[in-house]
Amino acid sequence: MPLPQRWLTSLMVRYGGRSILIDCGEGTQVALKEKGWSPKPIDIMCFTHFHADHISGLPGMLLTMGNAERTEPLTIVGPKGIEQVVESLRIIARDIPFEIRYIELKSKEESLDFGDFRMKAFKVSHNITCYGYTMEVDRAGRFDPDKAKVNEIPMMYWSRLQKGEVIDDGERIITPDMVLGPPRKGIKLTYCTDSRPTESIVRNAEGSDLFICEGMYGEPDKLAKAKEHKHMTFYEAASIAKEAAVKELWLTHYSPSLPKPKAYTAEVRAIFPDTVVASDGRTVDLRFDEE
Amino acid sequence: MPLPQRWLTSLMVRYGGRSILIDCGEGTQVALKEKGWSPKPIDIMCFTHFHADHISGLPGMLLTMGNAERTEPLTIVGPKGIEQVVESLRIIARDIPFEIRYIELKSKEESLDFGDFRMKAFKVSHNITCYGYTMEVDRAGRFDPDKAKVNEIPMMYWSRLQKGEVIDDGERIITPDMVLGPPRKGIKLTYCTDSRPTESIVRNAEGSDLFICEGMYGEPDKLAKAKEHKHMTFYEAASIAKEAAVKELWLTHYSPSLPKPKAYTAEVRAIFPDTVVASDGRTVDLRFDEE
Repeated sequence: MPLPQRWLTSLMVRYGGRSILIDCGEGTQVALKEKGWSPKPIDIMCFTHFHADHISGLPGMLLTMGNAERTEPLTIVGPKGIEQVVESLRIIARDIPFEIRYIELKSKEESLDFGDFRMKAFKVSHNITCYGYTMEVDRAGRFDPDKAKVNEIPMMYWSRLQKGEVIDDGERIITPDMVLGPPRKGIKLTYCTDSRPTESIVRNAEGSDLFICEGMYGEPDKLAKAKEHKHMTFYEAASIAKEAAVKELWLTHYSPSLPKPKAYTAEVRAIFPDTVVASDGRTVDLRFDEE
Repeated sequence: MPLPQRWLTSLMVRYGGRSILIDCGEGTQVALKEKGWSPKPIDIMCFTHFHADHISGLPGMLLTMGNAERTEPLTIVGPKGIEQVVESLRIIARDIPFEIRYIELKSKEESLDFGDFRMKAFKVSHNITCYGYTMEVDRAGRFDPDKAKVNEIPMMYWSRLQKGEVIDDGERIITPDMVLGPPRKGIKLTYCTDSRPTESIVRNAEGSDLFICEGMYGEPDKLAKAKEHKHMTFYEAASIAKEAAVKELWLTHYSPSLPKPKAYTAEVRAIFPDTVVASDGRTVDLRFDEE
């Protein structure tokens, strides 16, 4: 339920000129406007599940993208039934000048290749089918002139190989790994609401630079309520963050019954120190590690 | 399209313990929360038309009313197709603990009797079927003891008759008008978006205490654009207000292309002095005239 200063949960990721939106509750387009971000470059929308607080902003968002004269296709990813749900909501958003392509998740875990980044959907545990998502940007190894020389790669190809190009010089296929060191650490982001803690979250969040996770309840005595409603406490989310050895945890998706989530910051940091009890509009730039 | 500080158009009227909502764009429930008003007592929702900016907030509102444990039926009024549109949007709001009763408008003008107030829907002129609404609270005449005596009404019935009761004393049916003077002026409210100016608006808005009307464009050179998109300029709305002799006009539903609607206040007041170029969250108490 949205509150003033605390809207419904949604994540926008911007990478390489494209935007990816995960979940789109009522008011997401207003929140975007407040950031000064355009919805037009949203190429991919991923939905965790079909509860209204995660998808009710979709028809308005589609129309606003249409008003911004988007014409490129939009890919919508979601649980089984995604096309039916979106097309049903589109009774008030029929006229949009771009095509919608659907990816309906059928397995427990599915990898999605979007070219310059990868995503993975993994089933979590809520009272209806629900998925978490990771997004990963790979980073090639450092250029290694010694390796290039050992592999007898002419210098004229070095720069192109370094940019990832595969070259056929007429005699052989030259691949970037022939001039590059081992792949370096890329960037990994994991997003998970609404769920009880699961093995799949720990495993998929492993090593994330940023792990955004629901924390429905901050009060230590609300574990039973969390179990009943298939949500997590702050402390359960922090335990996952610790076990998955993520760099930073952002809590979100607080219960309307929790007026001051930040009041529990110390308690949750006792479990996982790099926790942010996040509030609306929080952003960060995730960059490759300096070397 | 919603903007920060300028959300989608919606009107909530509270009377006699009941609330009436006209239109419910995305974010309406957040706007209500900011006012500190509960959506639970909304007994009646009226929709002008099925463009998303007027109805996209409905699924979330229904769920929030359900979370507030409303169990009384809700009446939803709207153009032909209202039930189909609402039920289609309800793909994400199936589980609500109250019944929805539909009133589908079929004629150009329809009167709706809600007991202690009356509403009227009247067709306006947009690019899809669209209705304006009036709401009227009647006010009985003043108690007239001379008339009561002339009609030989026993004093024991005076108070009950004054409260509107009809009494059968075994010999005759005694009605309130037998002890009351002529009906006094009640309260009238008219709401109209989205439309070109029409005779039906002028006629139905006549004598309103408050006339809330779209003003899509404030710039005097945007008349052609208003005609093209089937909307009104501020000046057209003011001319209707003048012709309908309303007490006050509130403009709303501004184009996103109009950043400072209040800049045109002087120009529009030259046509109709009692114009308010309204902004979000505006409220007023409408009361019976002092006598």
